[in-house]
Amino acid sequence: MSKVFAQITMSLDGYATGPNVSVDNPLGDGGERLHYWLFGDGFKAPDAVDEQVAGEMFSNTGAFIVGKTMFDVGIGPWGDDGAFGMPCFVITHHSQPTLIKGPTTFSFVTDGIGGALRQARAVAGDKDICILGGPNILQQYLTTGAVDELRLDVAPVLLGHGTRLFNSGSGTAVEFERVRLLGSPLATHMIFRVASARGQTVSSI
Amino acid sequence: MSKVFAQITMSLDGYATGPNVSVDNPLGDGGERLHYWLFGDGFKAPDAVDEQVAGEMFSNTGAFIVGKTMFDVGIGPWGDDGAFGMPCFVITHHSQPTLIKGPTTFSFVTDGIGGALRQARAVAGDKDICILGGPNILQQYLTTGAVDELRLDVAPVLLGHGTRLFNSGSGTAVEFERVRLLGSPLATHMIFRVASARGQTVSSI
Repeated sequence: MSKVFAQITMSLDGYATGPNVSVDNPLGDGGERLHYWLFGDGFKAPDAVDEQVAGEMFSNTGAFIVGKTMFDVGIGPWGDDGAFGMPCFVITHHSQPTLIKGPTTFSFVTDGIGGALRQARAVAGDKDICILGGPNILQQYLTTGAVDELRLDVAPVLLGHGTRLFNSGSGTAVEFERVRLLGSPLATHMIFRVASARGQTVSSI
Repeated sequence: MSKVFAQITMSLDGYATGPNVSVDNPLGDGGERLHYWLFGDGFKAPDAVDEQVAGEMFSNTGAFIVGKTMFDVGIGPWGDDGAFGMPCFVITHHSQPTLIKGPTTFSFVTDGIGGALRQARAVAGDKDICILGGPNILQQYLTTGAVDELRLDVAPVLLGHGTRLFNSGSGTAVEFERVRLLGSPLATHMIFRVASARGQTVSSI
């Protein structure tokens, strides 16, 4: 059965990026620290656990969904093949032509999180859909009850500043059941099933 | 070798209490949810992992340190024996006589986090010192480098509102090494060794 999962990395104090995110500084000041579990820290490489978790982001996934800010800062680092190797839907206010990067197609969706999810479902078939962020998009999906699983990777650092994954008021009273717990020196990887969300159900968006 | 550890529970979105903390509402609105791992949720009791973690809060501990707000809202629920069964130092601005509750003595310290730590060390001998919060006290200790270990218990819920464990700007660039990872249905229990803190070292406070 196909599911919708959200995957994101945060610091122990809840930041998904450092401050001053820009095209030249995609994860913000100090934010690359969050992704050591994906790319190593210059000393330690990701270990087998990190590699397993990174691989699972793709292994049964048929479409990705990202916000426009994440697209804008990511499209450079994602390189000539677009990194995803499958359809990626970008939620934006302004329509633009589909962008093809090797095996990755970036389609721009202007009818919000519901529209992006419908389009992702149409191409994903019985595969899963991965919502990658940023935080604002992820919160919206969580609150509407559209997310079956939250896969949270926690980097063992206090950033102190940046973009919070969970703003005040977001996702109030969402209850989770933790279904997996793995750790490496570079991150703690948790999978949570969404047990209840106060908002709409997925079928209503 | 004696160590200083901080132990606190937070929600997945980083709240250490719900909103509207008061003597009648010690953990704030919805905040009792955070402590299901200690007291059960009315359906599930804490399991063996939760009990182990709760027990370790006391097993090699010689003194506790808390802030005045935590004392004010806690002293009722802590009951006639004061819950700790050993010296507990309360950081406050106003001196008051030591309060004895069965085997627990609450001593009021007016010379700040450094003073409380010195007094706690004096009575703890070769046992550990547990900093229990609240968030403001814990952040101050973390930032000064006084904490050897952070024991974080994460409840699988988004509270959406309340007192953040880590305020913006607090504990900037503290790096941790995760040394243990345990999970129960009611919480994820992580122990982090503080690898580097940008502030003073413990010997300087």
